[in-house]
Amino acid sequence: MPEHLPVGLAARASVAASSANLGPGFDSLGLALDLYDEIDVETTESGLTIDVMGEGEGQVPLDSSHLVVRAIEHGLRAAGVSAPGLIVRCRNRIPHSRGLGSSAAAVVGGLAAVNGLVAQTDSATLSRDELVQLSSEFEGHPDNASAAVLGGAVVSWTEGEAPSPRYSAAPLRLHPDIHLFPGIPQIRSSTAETRVLLADRVSHVDARFNLSRAALLVVALTERPDLLMQATEDRLHQPQRAPAMPASAEYIAILRRYDIAAVLSGAGPAVIALTTEPRLPAEALEFAAANGFAVEEMTVGRPVTWAPIASVSNDGRLG
Amino acid sequence: MPEHLPVGLAARASVAASSANLGPGFDSLGLALDLYDEIDVETTESGLTIDVMGEGEGQVPLDSSHLVVRAIEHGLRAAGVSAPGLIVRCRNRIPHSRGLGSSAAAVVGGLAAVNGLVAQTDSATLSRDELVQLSSEFEGHPDNASAAVLGGAVVSWTEGEAPSPRYSAAPLRLHPDIHLFPGIPQIRSSTAETRVLLADRVSHVDARFNLSRAALLVVALTERPDLLMQATEDRLHQPQRAPAMPASAEYIAILRRYDIAAVLSGAGPAVIALTTEPRLPAEALEFAAANGFAVEEMTVGRPVTWAPIASVSNDGRLG
Repeated sequence: MPEHLPVGLAARASVAASSANLGPGFDSLGLALDLYDEIDVETTESGLTIDVMGEGEGQVPLDSSHLVVRAIEHGLRAAGVSAPGLIVRCRNRIPHSRGLGSSAAAVVGGLAAVNGLVAQTDSATLSRDELVQLSSEFEGHPDNASAAVLGGAVVSWTEGEAPSPRYSAAPLRLHPDIHLFPGIPQIRSSTAETRVLLADRVSHVDARFNLSRAALLVVALTERPDLLMQATEDRLHQPQRAPAMPASAEYIAILRRYDIAAVLSGAGPAVIALTTEPRLPAEALEFAAANGFAVEEMTVGRPVTWAPIASVSNDGRLG
Repeated sequence: MPEHLPVGLAARASVAASSANLGPGFDSLGLALDLYDEIDVETTESGLTIDVMGEGEGQVPLDSSHLVVRAIEHGLRAAGVSAPGLIVRCRNRIPHSRGLGSSAAAVVGGLAAVNGLVAQTDSATLSRDELVQLSSEFEGHPDNASAAVLGGAVVSWTEGEAPSPRYSAAPLRLHPDIHLFPGIPQIRSSTAETRVLLADRVSHVDARFNLSRAALLVVALTERPDLLMQATEDRLHQPQRAPAMPASAEYIAILRRYDIAAVLSGAGPAVIALTTEPRLPAEALEFAAANGFAVEEMTVGRPVTWAPIASVSNDGRLG
């Protein structure tokens, strides 16, 4: 029997956006960004109240099918506790459907909010490893989820097969000279949402190409930012996605002509540039502005946090 | 017109054995081993005299088709010099046809011997980058060659396509807790020399599998030896080679059952175990002994060296 959480417990989780893949590191490399969703949760006598402010407001279902709610329920079960009722409030700053890990953040944030509740009881909170495992199960790969859990840059990997793969991640120390410039399309483009089917099979040559760059990218991110250009080459997903998101592909091409290591963020259409330069070239910024990309420098994101709060705030501010 | 080297110049190169691939890092990762071939070369008035002691003695051609001689001639052309005649003496300790990088060592050693001659003139020696490029051209991939040039552990990669690919490598700082135990079959087995044809195409899943492990292996080799087991998993070449070298496959399997990260060295049949343990389990050592594998701990190999000598030594010792 799961332990019932007392009514009136409340907690807040804060969880970062993330860029997955980073070029060659398909489904493996991830990088948290300094842009956070906040999730408040409070136990009540019964029922489910959910409120979403910011990104996704008015667009996502406000019931038990909501991803944060599903993550919270998954987390409660995993922690061996239950709650008779819940209030959930999401303050979303991570844009949806851009390739910035908003769904991984929703899941990691929901699980972390559970930790914030459970930490106020005698039950054990979910460990970082459990958070990586449980959150990655929602997506089927651990790149965004483990970046959101651990913060910073990560190498993640999958062991075993469906139905019970195990997900793990190791943190990387990002070199302090690397500046991150996400370029986020302000409008969801319908072509960008086209589901791009990647080939089931690839050439052995391309597999070798990507594995050498993925290995090199770990070197570049941690020790040798001078190698970022060579280390961010990819043959396994970006060329295949380019036709569905031509503006992203062109923006990447412009940046790379200036020796700025730009890649799709996750499956796009957002782009992220990694560079030791303090700013991007004017030609690239002009193209970005003309094509609806908001570009600003971000630092690397923190690990997910959770903490008790007095109650779910009714404060509508997106602070 | 190439500058003629004066008659009577002599130099010695010393070049390490190497393990390539290291599991997931097919054609990319490499690790030099503390086992060296020495190549002495001296300019003469005319003709070519070549002498081989140790490994390959009596088995390799003693004419201009000899790999070391071809490398020396390639190096002379690249350095813009020529020699009317040469004496070449090879003291070979790296076993041939085992997967320990003997051919890469022959090429790198030949080029480095040229540097030892050229360093005594006003001409410029070949840089480390040029040595990586020129030596990798002989093999078509840079893993063993760059390990032999740079020493230590390396990530290497290939840019561009035939006929003029560019080869590069970045050094890794191997974690000091990692012990290396090559297991070298004492007899060339005919099955091991079976040419294993790798599939032209692989699944996208397997490509992702290997790239995540190759990235993780960089982390494991440099910072997290506790992750070596997970980081040395491979789907792109070892399962395919196993039937051609069953003893190597079984030896690897035994070691891995004891949580010792063992992989094929290059294309095998040699095996290398990477572990923080100071010795290998008795069961593995017994299997190795019973199956003709010589197992001993080696430290990581030094970068290739070259130096002037008075003359090519006629000394037959393998010191």
